[in-house]
Amino acid sequence: MIRKLCAEGLGSAMLLIAVIGSGIMGESLAQGNAAVTLLANAIATGCMLFVIITVLGPISGAHFNPAVSLAFLLRGQITRPACAGYVAVQITGAFLGVWAAHAMFDLPILQLSETLHRTGPAQWLSEILATLGLMFVIFGGLRSRPDAVPVLVALYITGAYWFTSSTSFANPAVTLARGVSDTFAGIYPGHIVMFVVMQILAVFIAHATLRPLLDE
Amino acid sequence: MIRKLCAEGLGSAMLLIAVIGSGIMGESLAQGNAAVTLLANAIATGCMLFVIITVLGPISGAHFNPAVSLAFLLRGQITRPACAGYVAVQITGAFLGVWAAHAMFDLPILQLSETLHRTGPAQWLSEILATLGLMFVIFGGLRSRPDAVPVLVALYITGAYWFTSSTSFANPAVTLARGVSDTFAGIYPGHIVMFVVMQILAVFIAHATLRPLLDE
Amino acid sequence: MIRKLCAEGLGSAMLLIAVIGSGIMGESLAQGNAAVTLLANAIATGCMLFVIITVLGPISGAHFNPAVSLAFLLRGQITRPACAGYVAVQITGAFLGVWAAHAMFDLPILQLSETLHRTGPAQWLSEILATLGLMFVIFGGLRSRPDAVPVLVALYITGAYWFTSSTSFANPAVTLARGVSDTFAGIYPGHIVMFVVMQILAVFIAHATLRPLLDE
Amino acid sequence: MIRKLCAEGLGSAMLLIAVIGSGIMGESLAQGNAAVTLLANAIATGCMLFVIITVLGPISGAHFNPAVSLAFLLRGQITRPACAGYVAVQITGAFLGVWAAHAMFDLPILQLSETLHRTGPAQWLSEILATLGLMFVIFGGLRSRPDAVPVLVALYITGAYWFTSSTSFANPAVTLARGVSDTFAGIYPGHIVMFVVMQILAVFIAHATLRPLLDE
Repeated sequence: MIRKLCAEGLGSAMLLIAVIGSGIMGESLAQGNAAVTLLANAIATGCMLFVIITVLGPISGAHFNPAVSLAFLLRGQITRPACAGYVAVQITGAFLGVWAAHAMFDLPILQLSETLHRTGPAQWLSEILATLGLMFVIFGGLRSRPDAVPVLVALYITGAYWFTSSTSFANPAVTLARGVSDTFAGIYPGHIVMFVVMQILAVFIAHATLRPLLDE
Repeated sequence: MIRKLCAEGLGSAMLLIAVIGSGIMGESLAQGNAAVTLLANAIATGCMLFVIITVLGPISGAHFNPAVSLAFLLRGQITRPACAGYVAVQITGAFLGVWAAHAMFDLPILQLSETLHRTGPAQWLSEILATLGLMFVIFGGLRSRPDAVPVLVALYITGAYWFTSSTSFANPAVTLARGVSDTFAGIYPGHIVMFVVMQILAVFIAHATLRPLLDE
Repeated sequence: MIRKLCAEGLGSAMLLIAVIGSGIMGESLAQGNAAVTLLANAIATGCMLFVIITVLGPISGAHFNPAVSLAFLLRGQITRPACAGYVAVQITGAFLGVWAAHAMFDLPILQLSETLHRTGPAQWLSEILATLGLMFVIFGGLRSRPDAVPVLVALYITGAYWFTSSTSFANPAVTLARGVSDTFAGIYPGHIVMFVVMQILAVFIAHATLRPLLDE
Repeated sequence: MIRKLCAEGLGSAMLLIAVIGSGIMGESLAQGNAAVTLLANAIATGCMLFVIITVLGPISGAHFNPAVSLAFLLRGQITRPACAGYVAVQITGAFLGVWAAHAMFDLPILQLSETLHRTGPAQWLSEILATLGLMFVIFGGLRSRPDAVPVLVALYITGAYWFTSSTSFANPAVTLARGVSDTFAGIYPGHIVMFVVMQILAVFIAHATLRPLLDE
């Protein structure tokens, strides 16, 4: 179990390094063209997701996301204590990843985001649909082609950066950790709760609706 | 059959979410550089196509496109009622996908496109060639390497955004649904008919010409 | 043999549609940022190469390139008449592809390129190295992992657009056909001969040097 | 052994051609938008890494990186003389690759970089984390899915261009060779030593920490 928790924490840290770091790098070079920055953000995140899911999947299942761990709990595929442990290290790892990214770009380690546009009903709907899509990809992929799950998740998120107005956080640990980065990928801390509520809501919707469709 | 119809409807909705949503996001960020917007559009669509074909292929065959269902009908691989049902849910799903994208970006749900440049003989030829290419990829891929069909379709469409003047709709359900979005990916409703005629024409041309070449 | 020749001609036409069409589309949208146009060009070409090599490989071997056919001839893996036939349809298909791209973008069908910068020793060296790299990828890939040849060629060329000053034509049929397109991907007809000479020279260099390394 | 050394030298040269060449091409076309140049740089490098690891992996193991050879030495999987030979040809090949890129772009062959921003503690930390990540990808990938190592390394580096402030050299031979190119990818020679020290330090950290996690 220690090994699993280390894997979940490490993978979550690496994920946030990719999300935060690529946003900083993109913004510093893109001359204000935010679409180019978002492209860098989307590509770097997709690349990292493929890497960490492929390498750490055989060890911990490669959740890196409390919403995913919750979904496995609802399906009875992990125990409550394991789920609680996973969530704790995912959040811890995510914060460490943000701070590592700040350190690599010579920014103050401790920040609070002042990015104010990530709120409102349209963004909340985006988080519901983004998380539903992620559940669809993971549980559908596990059924139709398990060896393709790393590439499915990577490509889904790379695309979802563009087709949702929230850029698809779809992950409570990522959402919390982005609150402590006042950079391109940040979210104002006061807006975090609603994002997380929507993500968890989506897990329950997915649990109720996807199972008959995918014949889980 | 209900499960197959749900899968076709869901996949078609997800496809349109990707097409419309990424166009809106790209245009809002790209500072008027339409090539960057089209890049976002092409990448997001390709990512989504790979995801939905991989996950839903084992359930419904993953057509998401009346032209594809028609082609399977001509080859005697689905029945007339199944084809009619598929087309109905593909169109319904496509419209729902457009409206979901509008909701996610806080735009009026009901719109009509005023994008006027998607007409004329050059664009019509583009739709014929784009759809012929799609038939080539699907039926050729099914013969040469069936497990590669999801990536073949995804990469073909990602490329075809660039090498046809119409950006390769190649799908009557997608074409109809783009008519109700006055955003980057829209098409003026009066120009839809000719696009659909060309797409259907291409299915018949492909049926007559590709089979000897590919030895179907 | 007729089927093989059709496959070679069709694939060559599709390749040129991708090369020429994406250049036109990119240039018309990129607000003068030629790097974005080249990105579109590189991505569309790579996507198409993966598609045509995967689908048509089992039929004709998927050369689409007189330099590749010559290399197989030198290795005794196709006959002289077959090689001559392949080259003839590759060139014919390539020209038809250029003209189809012009028609799709509503440009005059018959053009001659006035792109004057594709000449000089640095560009010639680029064509030698680009073609050597292509030989390395094809014959090395056939030995190390034959099922990966489509993705190897696609990614090699996508990268080679960037790391050679000539953007890596590496194909006499493509070079000839680009001479009749006064668009982004064109080459002044008077500069074609030296490109083709360099490409053929590289085939002989590869034949002499790669075989011991790759233990063909 | 001669064949292995040739493979390591050739692959290292090809890697540097991709790194240096794409930087030159991108910078010359991107109208000062350095994010677009870095995107070209990242894509071309990733494409080349996939190609050379896939093709040459069965011959030499496809290190192309003294840090990787050192890590295999620490694990007792190559001998000291073999490691020394690998490092020598990797460095030699890397320099030849830089000079080939200069020749292809008609630049003076012999240059010294005047790029002065690649120094300081944040960049050094970046090189430690970048190299740790590379060790994680290679040794984790070899354990979890050996056939995916080429794509894992390619995607990791493509992403790491963005999420580290140093753009992830993570390779002493590449670092040394970039010192002799006063182009986009260059590094001031006086700043090379600290980068290489960090990369080697990371190999030892990885050796001590990754093995229990990955159960090598």
